[in-house]
Amino acid sequence: MSFYSHLQDAWQRQGSLLTVGLDPDLARLPAELRDEPDAILRFCREIVDLTAPYAAAFKPQIAYFAALRAEGQLEALCTYIREQHPHLALVLDAKRGDIGATATQYAREAFERYQAHAVTVNPYMGFDSIAPYLQWRDRGVFVLCRTSNPGGSDLQFLEVEGDPLYLRVAELAAGPWQRGAPAGQLGLVVGATYPDELARVRARVGDDVPVLVPGIGAQGGDVAASVKAGRNAAGDGLLINSSRAILYAPGDDWRAAAAEAARATRDAIEAARREV
Amino acid sequence: MSFYSHLQDAWQRQGSLLTVGLDPDLARLPAELRDEPDAILRFCREIVDLTAPYAAAFKPQIAYFAALRAEGQLEALCTYIREQHPHLALVLDAKRGDIGATATQYAREAFERYQAHAVTVNPYMGFDSIAPYLQWRDRGVFVLCRTSNPGGSDLQFLEVEGDPLYLRVAELAAGPWQRGAPAGQLGLVVGATYPDELARVRARVGDDVPVLVPGIGAQGGDVAASVKAGRNAAGDGLLINSSRAILYAPGDDWRAAAAEAARATRDAIEAARREV
Repeated sequence: MSFYSHLQDAWQRQGSLLTVGLDPDLARLPAELRDEPDAILRFCREIVDLTAPYAAAFKPQIAYFAALRAEGQLEALCTYIREQHPHLALVLDAKRGDIGATATQYAREAFERYQAHAVTVNPYMGFDSIAPYLQWRDRGVFVLCRTSNPGGSDLQFLEVEGDPLYLRVAELAAGPWQRGAPAGQLGLVVGATYPDELARVRARVGDDVPVLVPGIGAQGGDVAASVKAGRNAAGDGLLINSSRAILYAPGDDWRAAAAEAARATRDAIEAARREV
Repeated sequence: MSFYSHLQDAWQRQGSLLTVGLDPDLARLPAELRDEPDAILRFCREIVDLTAPYAAAFKPQIAYFAALRAEGQLEALCTYIREQHPHLALVLDAKRGDIGATATQYAREAFERYQAHAVTVNPYMGFDSIAPYLQWRDRGVFVLCRTSNPGGSDLQFLEVEGDPLYLRVAELAAGPWQRGAPAGQLGLVVGATYPDELARVRARVGDDVPVLVPGIGAQGGDVAASVKAGRNAAGDGLLINSSRAILYAPGDDWRAAAAEAARATRDAIEAARREV
């Protein structure tokens, strides 16, 4: 099954475009877990089970595991997600960017070691740095396009032949970089903090390019505006990601708070998605 | 000691600008080592000792370790380099690109877990994605500028206000992104396959920006042309990287072949460096 078919199935079965970002920060874990040797795995597994009813995908951020020497816990978490929630999508947020033989190593890391359905990558080194991932025909690649941080404009907003650079990246990813890839194998990352830009990207790339949208929740992006700007003609085509606002939702009972934050975000997305 | 002071000391002590890239590919290891459980660590340790007399720096490429689930071996290798060859520089080739809290995790990974003196990073997400690394004032950051792969031109050659994008990146890294950093804390990566472009970068950024130059050897870049194009007024300012052409140098005795390849490359660099 292609990545895009898997994603479409997840959107439909789950009635949700929500992606739960798994950024486990040791200092913010519940006190009861913090001293366990596999604290971040335990925490993430619980978050996964609590939020799965409201989600279409999970997105572990590898940096949080790597800084803690916890690749083993990330492997176990990915296996858990694949086994316990096989219909959801597993997107590894790695933002790798390298070429040739080195990119192939990163693709192996993402697709074989961590069994991710899709991975995020950086476009600065060009098509050579994307192509090796496309060899895995049943997996997906989300190319960084417009990022949600203020400094994102430093390069992405530079004007190239009348367009900002990020739109050129969107065009490359939706055009020449596809080169016979199955529909939806190549997607984009476009931050939620600039809904107008998300709308420009969607208009430029058409309906069949899935867009991963970080930046709602803790980063302040507007859910409704992002969904309306980024949805395709079928009312989907998006993975709307929330990480910290779900993982560390305030409340006496962290489990109930996380589940409720996921449910509320899913509901907000669904309401906007159906709005005319 | 600042990273740049450490580097200048290494250039001078060693009489070399050579960087030995450590890209251990299991399939290409000597047969005698291939079946050992810590084969890539053993191989890299031997390469390090054999080539250290001719080198200013070592550059492990983290992807090769990550694909093999060998972060433990990379840690042990980095410790070995720091302890056995303390005057050389240890550059972790990771090309990370992420922002805020996530970039801080990657900086911890590079500077604390692997004890690297410097790390390579990707500029696409802008200054936000560079700033967290600069908190470690005694470490260095090499920003991808112009890469040695053909597809590097896809983005890096797009014209922005009369300049190719890579020159804008060079100017940002040498100008506003420095913001009070010690001289030489921010360097650039410029591939050896385009010596004219390396010369344009050097002319634009001045003498005190160290430039890491991959692409000689297996990738075909011309050593002499690269050195002459990239050296600063002091005749240094460069780390000229060779990986596969040293690691897998042909010959009956792989140890002698690797040492000889390193020595010959060092000599070629030194000859060009002194040429008027």
